[in-house]
Amino acid sequence: MNFRSNIFNSHSKEDGDFFLGITKILGFKPKMLGVYKKAFLHRSINKKDENGNPLNYERLEFLGDAMLGTIISKYLYNEVPGGDEGYLTKMRSKIVSRKHLNELGKDLNLIKFVESRIPKSHFGDNIHGNVFEALVGAIYLDRGYKYCEKFINDRVIEPYVDIEQLEGKVISYKSLVIEWCQKQKKTFNYNVYEDTGNDALKHFAVKLSIDGRVMAKARATSKKKAEERASKRAYYALQDKMENRN
Amino acid sequence: MNFRSNIFNSHSKEDGDFFLGITKILGFKPKMLGVYKKAFLHRSINKKDENGNPLNYERLEFLGDAMLGTIISKYLYNEVPGGDEGYLTKMRSKIVSRKHLNELGKDLNLIKFVESRIPKSHFGDNIHGNVFEALVGAIYLDRGYKYCEKFINDRVIEPYVDIEQLEGKVISYKSLVIEWCQKQKKTFNYNVYEDTGNDALKHFAVKLSIDGRVMAKARATSKKKAEERASKRAYYALQDKMENRN
Repeated sequence: MNFRSNIFNSHSKEDGDFFLGITKILGFKPKMLGVYKKAFLHRSINKKDENGNPLNYERLEFLGDAMLGTIISKYLYNEVPGGDEGYLTKMRSKIVSRKHLNELGKDLNLIKFVESRIPKSHFGDNIHGNVFEALVGAIYLDRGYKYCEKFINDRVIEPYVDIEQLEGKVISYKSLVIEWCQKQKKTFNYNVYEDTGNDALKHFAVKLSIDGRVMAKARATSKKKAEERASKRAYYALQDKMENRN
Repeated sequence: MNFRSNIFNSHSKEDGDFFLGITKILGFKPKMLGVYKKAFLHRSINKKDENGNPLNYERLEFLGDAMLGTIISKYLYNEVPGGDEGYLTKMRSKIVSRKHLNELGKDLNLIKFVESRIPKSHFGDNIHGNVFEALVGAIYLDRGYKYCEKFINDRVIEPYVDIEQLEGKVISYKSLVIEWCQKQKKTFNYNVYEDTGNDALKHFAVKLSIDGRVMAKARATSKKKAEERASKRAYYALQDKMENRN
Protein backbone atom coordinates (compact mmCIF):
# COMPACT_ATOMS: atom_id res chain seq x y z
CA MET A 1 0.00 0.00 0.00
CA ASN A 2 1.27 3.46 -0.81
CA PHE A 3 -0.53 6.74 -0.10
CA ARG A 4 2.47 8.90 -0.72
CA SER A 5 1.03 10.56 -3.78
CA ASN A 6 -2.21 11.80 -2.28
CA ILE A 7 -2.06 11.59 1.44
CA PHE A 8 -4.86 14.05 2.13
CA ASN A 9 -7.01 13.52 -0.92
CA SER A 10 -9.95 11.58 0.34
CA HIS A 11 -11.44 9.85 -2.68
CA SER A 12 -8.69 7.72 -4.11
CA LYS A 13 -8.52 3.97 -4.41
CA GLU A 14 -5.60 3.98 -1.97
CA ASP A 15 -7.69 5.85 0.56
CA GLY A 16 -10.37 3.24 0.17
CA ASP A 17 -7.86 0.48 0.91
CA PHE A 18 -6.53 2.37 3.91
CA PHE A 19 -10.06 3.00 5.17
CA LEU A 20 -10.90 -0.69 4.99
CA GLY A 21 -7.64 -1.79 6.53
CA ILE A 22 -7.81 0.63 9.40
CA THR A 23 -11.50 -0.04 10.04
CA LYS A 24 -10.70 -3.73 10.53
CA ILE A 25 -8.07 -2.89 13.11
CA LEU A 26 -10.13 -0.27 14.91
CA GLY A 27 -13.36 -2.22 14.97
CA PHE A 28 -15.25 0.99 14.04
CA LYS A 29 -15.29 3.45 11.16
CA PRO A 30 -12.96 6.44 11.36
CA LYS A 31 -14.53 9.85 10.88
CA MET A 32 -11.44 11.89 10.05
CA LEU A 33 -9.28 9.62 7.95
CA GLY A 34 -6.46 12.19 7.80
CA VAL A 35 -5.63 11.88 11.47
CA TYR A 36 -5.16 8.11 11.12
CA LYS A 37 -2.93 8.61 8.11
CA LYS A 38 -0.81 10.95 10.18
CA ALA A 39 -0.42 8.16 12.74
CA PHE A 40 1.64 6.23 10.18
CA LEU A 41 3.82 8.99 8.72
CA HIS A 42 7.44 8.51 9.69
CA ARG A 43 9.51 11.68 10.10
CA SER A 44 11.84 10.53 7.32
CA ILE A 45 9.24 11.46 4.71
CA ASN A 46 9.60 15.14 5.71
CA LYS A 47 5.99 16.12 5.14
CA LYS A 48 4.70 19.50 6.31
CA ASP A 49 1.17 20.79 6.81
CA GLU A 50 -0.17 23.96 5.18
CA ASN A 51 1.45 26.07 7.93
CA GLY A 52 4.87 24.48 7.54
CA ASN A 53 4.59 22.31 10.68
CA PRO A 54 6.17 18.85 10.41
CA LEU A 55 3.63 16.14 9.71
CA ASN A 56 4.47 12.79 11.28
CA TYR A 57 3.27 10.47 14.00
CA GLU A 58 5.42 11.75 16.85
CA ARG A 59 2.97 14.25 18.29
CA LEU A 60 0.17 11.67 18.15
CA GLU A 61 2.46 9.25 19.94
CA PHE A 62 2.78 11.78 22.78
CA LEU A 63 -1.01 11.98 23.00
CA GLY A 64 -1.63 8.24 22.72
CA ASP A 65 0.98 7.43 25.34
CA ALA A 66 -0.84 9.66 27.85
CA MET A 67 -4.28 8.24 27.03
CA LEU A 68 -3.05 4.67 27.21
CA GLY A 69 -1.60 5.38 30.67
CA THR A 70 -4.88 6.85 31.86
CA ILE A 71 -7.03 3.96 30.68
CA ILE A 72 -4.68 1.34 32.09
CA SER A 73 -4.63 3.31 35.36
CA LYS A 74 -8.41 3.20 35.60
CA TYR A 75 -8.45 -0.49 34.78
CA LEU A 76 -5.89 -1.22 37.49
CA TYR A 77 -7.65 1.03 39.99
CA ASN A 78 -10.85 -1.00 39.60
CA GLU A 79 -9.23 -4.38 39.18
CA VAL A 80 -6.80 -4.26 42.10
CA PRO A 81 -8.62 -2.61 45.00
CA GLY A 82 -5.90 -3.65 47.42
CA GLY A 83 -2.97 -2.24 45.46
CA ASP A 84 -1.41 0.99 46.72
CA GLU A 85 -0.12 3.81 44.52
CA GLY A 86 3.35 2.26 44.20
CA TYR A 87 1.93 -1.12 43.22
CA LEU A 88 -0.43 0.41 40.64
CA THR A 89 2.43 2.41 39.15
CA LYS A 90 4.60 -0.69 38.87
CA MET A 91 1.85 -2.73 37.23
CA ARG A 92 1.07 0.06 34.81
CA SER A 93 4.69 0.28 33.68
CA LYS A 94 4.70 -3.46 33.04
CA ILE A 95 1.59 -3.21 30.89
CA VAL A 96 2.75 -0.21 28.87
CA SER A 97 6.37 -1.32 28.68
CA ARG A 98 8.19 -0.65 25.43
CA LYS A 99 8.48 -4.39 24.85
CA HIS A 100 4.79 -4.96 25.37
CA LEU A 101 3.73 -2.08 23.13
CA ASN A 102 6.04 -3.30 20.39
CA GLU A 103 4.42 -6.70 20.62
CA LEU A 104 0.96 -5.15 20.36
CA GLY A 105 1.88 -3.11 17.30
CA LYS A 106 3.49 -6.15 15.70
CA ASP A 107 0.47 -8.36 16.33
CA LEU A 108 -1.75 -5.81 14.61
CA ASN A 109 0.79 -5.61 11.78
CA LEU A 110 0.59 -1.83 11.91
CA ILE A 111 3.88 -1.47 10.08
CA LYS A 112 2.18 -2.28 6.79
CA PHE A 113 0.55 1.17 6.93
CA VAL A 114 3.77 3.06 7.73
CA GLU A 115 4.96 5.56 5.15
CA SER A 116 8.67 6.17 5.30
CA ARG A 117 11.72 6.88 3.17
CA ILE A 118 13.69 4.39 5.19
CA PRO A 119 13.16 0.76 4.14
CA LYS A 120 10.96 -0.95 6.73
CA SER A 121 13.54 -3.67 7.21
CA HIS A 122 15.89 -1.02 8.65
CA PHE A 123 13.57 -0.12 11.51
CA GLY A 124 14.16 -1.50 14.98
CA ASP A 125 11.41 -2.98 17.11
CA ASN A 126 10.27 0.34 18.56
CA ILE A 127 8.47 1.44 15.43
CA HIS A 128 5.72 -1.08 16.25
CA GLY A 129 5.04 0.38 19.70
CA ASN A 130 5.39 3.96 18.50
CA VAL A 131 2.74 3.65 15.81
CA PHE A 132 0.52 1.75 18.23
CA GLU A 133 0.65 4.75 20.58
CA ALA A 134 0.12 7.13 17.67
CA LEU A 135 -2.95 5.13 16.64
CA VAL A 136 -4.41 5.56 20.14
CA GLY A 137 -3.71 9.31 19.83
CA ALA A 138 -5.54 9.37 16.50
CA ILE A 139 -8.57 7.60 17.99
CA TYR A 140 -8.59 10.14 20.84
CA LEU A 141 -8.71 13.07 18.41
CA ASP A 142 -11.15 11.44 16.03
CA ARG A 143 -13.64 9.80 18.38
CA GLY A 144 -12.77 10.83 21.92
CA TYR A 145 -12.24 9.05 25.19
CA LYS A 146 -14.92 6.35 24.99
CA TYR A 147 -13.59 4.88 21.75
CA CYS A 148 -10.06 4.86 23.13
CA GLU A 149 -11.27 3.01 26.18
CA LYS A 150 -13.04 0.41 24.09
CA PHE A 151 -10.09 -0.01 21.72
CA ILE A 152 -7.60 -0.39 24.55
CA ASN A 153 -9.88 -2.75 26.35
CA ASP A 154 -10.37 -4.94 23.26
CA ARG A 155 -6.81 -4.76 21.95
CA VAL A 156 -4.70 -4.54 25.08
CA ILE A 157 -6.49 -5.44 28.28
CA GLU A 158 -8.76 -8.27 27.26
CA PRO A 159 -6.21 -10.22 25.19
CA TYR A 160 -2.99 -9.47 27.06
CA VAL A 161 -3.41 -8.29 30.60
CA ASP A 162 -3.36 -10.86 33.32
CA ILE A 163 -2.72 -9.42 36.75
CA GLU A 164 -1.57 -12.72 38.24
CA GLN A 165 0.88 -13.27 35.43
CA LEU A 166 2.17 -9.68 35.67
CA GLU A 167 2.70 -10.18 39.37
CA GLY A 168 4.83 -13.20 38.58
CA LYS A 169 2.49 -15.41 40.60
CA VAL A 170 1.63 -17.45 37.52
CA ILE A 171 4.34 -17.81 34.92
CA SER A 172 2.49 -20.11 32.55
CA TYR A 173 -1.03 -21.43 32.73
CA LYS A 174 -0.07 -24.15 30.28
CA SER A 175 2.49 -25.56 32.68
CA LEU A 176 -0.04 -25.49 35.53
CA VAL A 177 -2.49 -27.46 33.40
CA ILE A 178 0.14 -30.00 32.32
CA GLU A 179 1.36 -30.43 35.86
CA TRP A 180 -2.18 -31.06 37.07
CA CYS A 181 -2.87 -33.60 34.29
CA GLN A 182 0.32 -35.49 35.07
CA LYS A 183 -0.46 -35.66 38.78
CA GLN A 184 -4.02 -36.76 38.07
CA LYS A 185 -2.83 -39.25 35.44
CA LYS A 186 -5.00 -37.65 32.78
CA THR A 187 -4.17 -37.32 29.09
CA PHE A 188 -4.21 -33.89 27.52
CA ASN A 189 -4.06 -32.60 23.98
CA TYR A 190 -3.58 -29.13 22.49
CA ASN A 191 -5.10 -29.13 19.02
CA VAL A 192 -3.84 -26.01 17.20
CA TYR A 193 -4.99 -24.82 13.77
CA GLU A 194 -4.97 -21.61 11.76
CA ASP A 195 -8.23 -19.68 12.07
CA THR A 196 -7.81 -16.20 10.65
CA GLY A 197 -11.43 -15.76 9.61
CA ASN A 198 -12.36 -12.15 8.93
CA ASP A 199 -9.48 -10.75 10.90
CA ALA A 200 -6.95 -8.34 9.47
CA LEU A 201 -4.18 -10.50 10.86
CA LYS A 202 -3.30 -14.16 11.14
CA HIS A 203 -4.95 -15.96 14.05
CA PHE A 204 -4.61 -19.39 15.57
CA ALA A 205 -7.20 -21.40 17.37
CA VAL A 206 -6.61 -24.03 20.03
CA LYS A 207 -8.81 -26.74 21.46
CA LEU A 208 -7.54 -28.14 24.73
CA SER A 209 -8.86 -31.60 25.54
CA ILE A 210 -8.37 -33.48 28.77
CA ASP A 211 -9.13 -37.20 28.74
CA GLY A 212 -10.62 -36.74 25.29
CA ARG A 213 -13.08 -34.07 26.39
CA VAL A 214 -12.74 -30.46 25.09
CA MET A 215 -12.13 -28.34 28.18
CA ALA A 216 -11.40 -24.95 26.60
CA LYS A 217 -11.03 -23.14 23.28
CA ALA A 218 -9.14 -19.96 22.49
CA ARG A 219 -7.94 -17.81 19.60
CA ALA A 220 -4.93 -15.51 19.43
CA THR A 221 -2.31 -14.10 17.10
CA SER A 222 0.26 -16.78 17.88
CA LYS A 223 0.12 -20.47 18.70
CA LYS A 224 1.79 -19.87 22.03
CA LYS A 225 -0.67 -17.15 23.05
CA ALA A 226 -3.68 -19.22 21.98
CA GLU A 227 -2.41 -22.19 24.02
CA GLU A 228 -1.82 -19.98 27.02
CA ARG A 229 -5.26 -18.47 26.75
CA ALA A 230 -6.98 -21.85 26.44
CA SER A 231 -4.95 -23.10 29.39
CA LYS A 232 -6.03 -20.13 31.48
CA ARG A 233 -9.68 -20.88 30.70
CA ALA A 234 -9.23 -24.54 31.52
CA TYR A 235 -7.37 -23.57 34.68
CA TYR A 236 -10.28 -21.51 35.94
CA ALA A 237 -12.74 -24.22 34.96
CA LEU A 238 -10.70 -26.80 36.82
CA GLN A 239 -9.71 -24.51 39.65
CA ASP A 240 -11.67 -26.22 42.38
CA LYS A 241 -10.18 -29.60 41.53
CA MET A 242 -6.69 -28.14 41.13
CA GLU A 243 -6.75 -26.40 44.47
CA ASN A 244 -7.44 -29.74 46.11
CA ARG A 245 -4.60 -31.42 44.28
CA ASN A 246 -2.10 -31.29 47.14
CA MET B 1 -15.57 20.33 59.33
CA ASN B 2 -15.23 16.76 60.51
CA PHE B 3 -16.65 13.67 58.80
CA ARG B 4 -14.61 11.26 60.82
CA SER B 5 -17.60 9.83 62.62
CA ASN B 6 -19.68 8.87 59.61
CA ILE B 7 -17.62 8.99 56.51
CA PHE B 8 -19.87 6.81 54.36
CA ASN B 9 -23.19 7.59 55.90
CA SER B 10 -24.91 9.75 53.36
CA HIS B 11 -27.58 11.69 55.23
CA SER B 12 -25.83 13.61 57.95
CA LYS B 13 -25.50 17.35 58.41
CA GLU B 14 -21.75 17.01 57.87
CA ASP B 15 -22.39 15.28 54.55
CA GLY B 16 -24.63 18.15 53.59
CA ASP B 17 -21.86 20.65 54.37
CA PHE B 18 -19.33 18.58 52.44
CA PHE B 19 -21.73 18.26 49.51
CA LEU B 20 -22.22 22.02 49.34
CA GLY B 21 -18.53 22.78 49.75
CA ILE B 22 -17.40 20.31 47.12
CA THR B 23 -20.14 21.31 44.68
CA LYS B 24 -18.87 24.90 44.79
CA ILE B 25 -15.37 23.75 43.93
CA LEU B 26 -16.44 21.28 41.25
CA GLY B 27 -18.97 23.52 39.58
CA PHE B 28 -21.35 20.55 39.31
CA LYS B 29 -23.11 18.16 41.67
CA PRO B 30 -21.30 14.96 42.64
CA LYS B 31 -23.21 11.72 42.14
CA MET B 32 -21.20 9.43 44.39
CA LEU B 33 -20.24 11.53 47.38
CA GLY B 34 -18.16 8.72 48.89
CA VAL B 35 -15.52 8.86 46.21
CA TYR B 36 -14.96 12.59 46.85
CA LYS B 37 -14.68 11.94 50.56
CA LYS B 38 -12.02 9.38 49.85
CA ALA B 39 -10.09 12.06 47.94
CA PHE B 40 -9.51 13.85 51.25
CA LEU B 41 -8.67 10.93 53.55
CA HIS B 42 -5.05 11.06 54.62
CA ARG B 43 -3.38 7.70 55.26
CA SER B 44 -2.72 8.69 58.88
CA ILE B 45 -6.36 8.06 59.74
CA ASN B 46 -5.88 4.36 58.94
CA LYS B 47 -9.32 3.71 57.53
CA LYS B 48 -10.11 0.44 55.76
CA ASP B 49 -12.96 -0.52 53.47
CA GLU B 50 -15.25 -3.51 54.09
CA ASN B 51 -12.64 -5.83 52.52
CA GLY B 52 -9.80 -4.56 54.65
CA ASN B 53 -8.20 -2.45 51.91
CA PRO B 54 -6.68 0.86 53.05
CA LEU B 55 -8.96 3.81 52.42
CA ASN B 56 -7.12 7.03 51.61
CA TYR B 57 -6.53 9.38 48.72
CA GLU B 58 -3.33 7.84 47.37
CA ARG B 59 -4.90 5.55 44.79
CA LEU B 60 -7.11 8.37 43.53
CA GLU B 61 -4.01 10.53 43.25
CA PHE B 62 -2.49 7.91 40.93
CA LEU B 63 -5.63 8.05 38.77
CA GLY B 64 -5.94 11.84 38.79
CA ASP B 65 -2.29 12.34 37.92
CA ALA B 66 -2.74 10.22 34.77
CA MET B 67 -5.97 11.97 33.74
CA LEU B 68 -4.49 15.41 34.31
CA GLY B 69 -1.54 14.49 32.09
CA THR B 70 -3.84 13.29 29.32
CA ILE B 71 -6.01 16.39 29.29
CA ILE B 72 -3.05 18.75 29.39
CA SER B 73 -1.50 16.71 26.56
CA LYS B 74 -4.55 17.16 24.38
CA TYR B 75 -4.68 20.86 25.17
CA LEU B 76 -1.02 21.29 24.18
CA TYR B 77 -1.45 19.14 21.07
CA ASN B 78 -4.18 21.46 19.81
CA GLU B 79 -2.70 24.69 21.09
CA VAL B 80 0.86 24.29 19.85
CA PRO B 81 0.67 22.72 16.39
CA GLY B 82 4.34 23.45 15.74
CA GLY B 83 5.68 21.82 18.91
CA ASP B 84 7.34 18.44 18.57
CA GLU B 85 7.05 15.57 21.04
CA GLY B 86 9.97 16.81 23.15
CA TYR B 87 8.56 20.32 23.34
CA LEU B 88 5.10 19.07 24.29
CA THR B 89 6.56 16.85 27.00
CA LYS B 90 8.54 19.75 28.44
CA MET B 91 5.55 22.09 28.49
CA ARG B 92 3.38 19.44 30.08
CA SER B 93 5.84 18.93 32.91
CA LYS B 94 5.86 22.65 33.57
CA ILE B 95 2.07 22.74 33.78
CA VAL B 96 1.74 19.69 36.02
CA SER B 97 4.83 20.46 38.10
CA ARG B 98 4.61 19.71 41.80
CA LYS B 99 4.91 23.42 42.57
CA HIS B 100 2.09 24.32 40.22
CA LEU B 101 -0.23 21.60 41.50
CA ASN B 102 0.42 22.67 45.08
CA GLU B 103 -0.52 26.20 44.14
CA LEU B 104 -3.74 24.99 42.51
CA GLY B 105 -4.73 22.94 45.54
CA LYS B 106 -3.92 25.85 47.84
CA ASP B 107 -5.96 28.31 45.79
CA LEU B 108 -8.97 26.03 46.03
CA ASN B 109 -8.31 25.67 49.77
CA LEU B 110 -8.75 21.91 49.44
CA ILE B 111 -6.96 21.29 52.71
CA LYS B 112 -10.04 22.35 54.64
CA PHE B 113 -11.65 19.05 53.58
CA VAL B 114 -8.68 16.86 54.51
CA GLU B 115 -9.25 14.33 57.27
CA SER B 116 -6.08 13.38 59.07
CA ARG B 117 -4.67 12.44 62.45
CA ILE B 118 -1.71 14.71 61.81
CA PRO B 119 -2.39 18.39 62.51
CA LYS B 120 -2.75 20.23 59.22
CA SER B 121 -0.06 22.69 60.23
CA HIS B 122 2.44 19.81 60.15
CA PHE B 123 1.88 19.05 56.47
CA GLY B 124 4.34 20.27 53.86
CA ASP B 125 3.24 21.93 50.65
CA ASN B 126 2.73 18.69 48.74
CA ILE B 127 -0.53 17.83 50.44
CA HIS B 128 -2.22 20.58 48.38
CA GLY B 129 -1.13 19.12 45.04
CA ASN B 130 -1.79 15.56 46.15
CA VAL B 131 -5.40 16.17 47.08
CA PHE B 132 -5.86 18.21 43.91
CA GLU B 133 -4.80 15.16 41.88
CA ALA B 134 -6.98 12.91 44.04
CA LEU B 135 -9.94 15.20 43.38
CA VAL B 136 -9.40 14.82 39.62
CA GLY B 137 -9.31 11.04 40.14
CA ALA B 138 -12.60 11.23 42.03
CA ILE B 139 -14.24 13.22 39.23
CA TYR B 140 -13.01 10.63 36.73
CA LEU B 141 -14.63 7.79 38.66
CA ASP B 142 -17.81 9.69 39.47
CA ARG B 143 -18.56 11.50 36.22
CA GLY B 144 -16.06 10.32 33.61
CA TYR B 145 -13.74 11.96 31.14
CA LYS B 146 -15.88 14.89 29.99
CA TYR B 147 -16.30 16.32 33.48
CA CYS B 148 -12.58 15.97 34.14
CA GLU B 149 -11.85 17.83 30.96
CA LYS B 150 -14.19 20.66 31.90
CA PHE B 151 -12.90 20.85 35.47
CA ILE B 152 -9.27 20.94 34.36
CA ASN B 153 -10.07 23.46 31.70
CA ASP B 154 -11.89 25.75 34.14
CA ARG B 155 -9.55 25.29 37.09
CA VAL B 156 -6.16 24.79 35.51
CA ILE B 157 -5.93 25.78 31.87
CA GLU B 158 -8.13 28.83 31.64
CA PRO B 159 -6.88 30.59 34.78
CA TYR B 160 -3.24 29.51 34.84
CA VAL B 161 -1.86 28.28 31.57
CA ASP B 162 -0.15 30.79 29.35
CA ILE B 163 2.03 29.21 26.69
CA GLU B 164 4.11 32.35 26.11
CA GLN B 165 4.79 32.72 29.79
CA LEU B 166 5.65 29.03 30.14
CA GLU B 167 8.06 29.37 27.26
CA GLY B 168 9.75 32.19 29.13
CA LYS B 169 9.01 34.57 26.28
CA VAL B 170 6.94 36.77 28.55
CA ILE B 171 7.98 36.89 32.18
CA SER B 172 5.44 39.41 33.38
CA TYR B 173 2.68 41.12 31.49
CA LYS B 174 2.53 43.74 34.21
CA SER B 175 6.12 44.81 33.55
CA LEU B 176 5.43 45.00 29.79
CA VAL B 177 2.46 47.28 30.44
CA ILE B 178 4.41 49.51 32.85
CA GLU B 179 7.34 49.75 30.45
CA TRP B 180 5.01 50.76 27.62
CA CYS B 181 3.28 53.40 29.76
CA GLN B 182 6.59 54.90 30.82
CA LYS B 183 7.86 55.09 27.24
CA GLN B 184 4.59 56.61 26.06
CA LYS B 185 4.50 58.99 29.05
CA LYS B 186 1.12 57.69 30.14
CA THR B 187 -0.12 57.35 33.70
CA PHE B 188 -1.33 53.96 34.89
CA ASN B 189 -3.18 52.73 37.94
CA TYR B 190 -3.93 49.24 39.30
CA ASN B 191 -7.03 49.48 41.46
CA VAL B 192 -7.23 46.28 43.53
CA TYR B 193 -10.12 45.27 45.81
CA GLU B 194 -11.50 42.12 47.39
CA ASP B 195 -14.32 40.59 45.37
CA THR B 196 -15.07 37.11 46.64
CA GLY B 197 -18.73 37.12 45.63
CA ASN B 198 -20.27 33.63 45.59
CA ASP B 199 -16.93 31.88 45.33
CA ALA B 200 -15.80 29.24 47.76
CA LEU B 201 -12.48 31.03 48.10
CA LYS B 202 -11.21 34.57 48.46
CA HIS B 203 -10.91 36.49 45.20
CA PHE B 204 -9.47 39.82 44.25
CA ALA B 205 -10.50 42.10 41.43
CA VAL B 206 -8.34 44.59 39.59
CA LYS B 207 -9.16 47.52 37.35
CA LEU B 208 -6.24 48.69 35.28
CA SER B 209 -6.57 52.27 34.05
CA ILE B 210 -4.27 54.03 31.62
CA ASP B 211 -4.52 57.81 31.44
CA GLY B 212 -7.63 57.59 33.60
CA ARG B 213 -9.45 55.18 31.27
CA VAL B 214 -10.23 51.58 32.39
CA MET B 215 -8.33 49.36 29.97
CA ALA B 216 -8.91 45.93 31.53
CA LYS B 217 -10.50 44.15 34.50
CA ALA B 218 -9.67 40.79 36.00
CA ARG B 219 -10.40 38.56 38.98
CA ALA B 220 -8.16 35.94 40.57
CA THR B 221 -7.29 34.28 43.86
CA SER B 222 -4.41 36.62 44.64
CA LYS B 223 -3.70 40.31 44.04
CA LYS B 224 -0.62 39.45 42.01
CA LYS B 225 -2.48 37.02 39.75
CA ALA B 226 -5.35 39.43 39.20
CA GLU B 227 -2.90 42.21 38.25
CA GLU B 228 -1.09 39.88 35.89
CA ARG B 229 -4.31 38.78 34.27
CA ALA B 230 -5.57 42.34 33.81
CA SER B 231 -2.17 43.31 32.39
CA LYS B 232 -2.34 40.46 29.91
CA ARG B 233 -5.75 41.63 28.72
CA ALA B 234 -4.55 45.21 28.41
CA TYR B 235 -1.43 43.96 26.64
CA TYR B 236 -3.46 42.23 23.96
CA ALA B 237 -5.79 45.22 23.64
CA LEU B 238 -2.81 47.52 23.23
CA GLN B 239 -0.73 45.08 21.22
CA ASP B 240 -0.85 46.98 17.94
CA LYS B 241 0.33 50.14 19.62
CA MET B 242 2.93 48.32 21.66
CA GLU B 243 4.40 46.55 18.69
CA ASN B 244 5.04 49.94 17.09
CA ARG B 245 6.66 51.31 20.22
CA ASN B 246 10.26 50.89 19.04
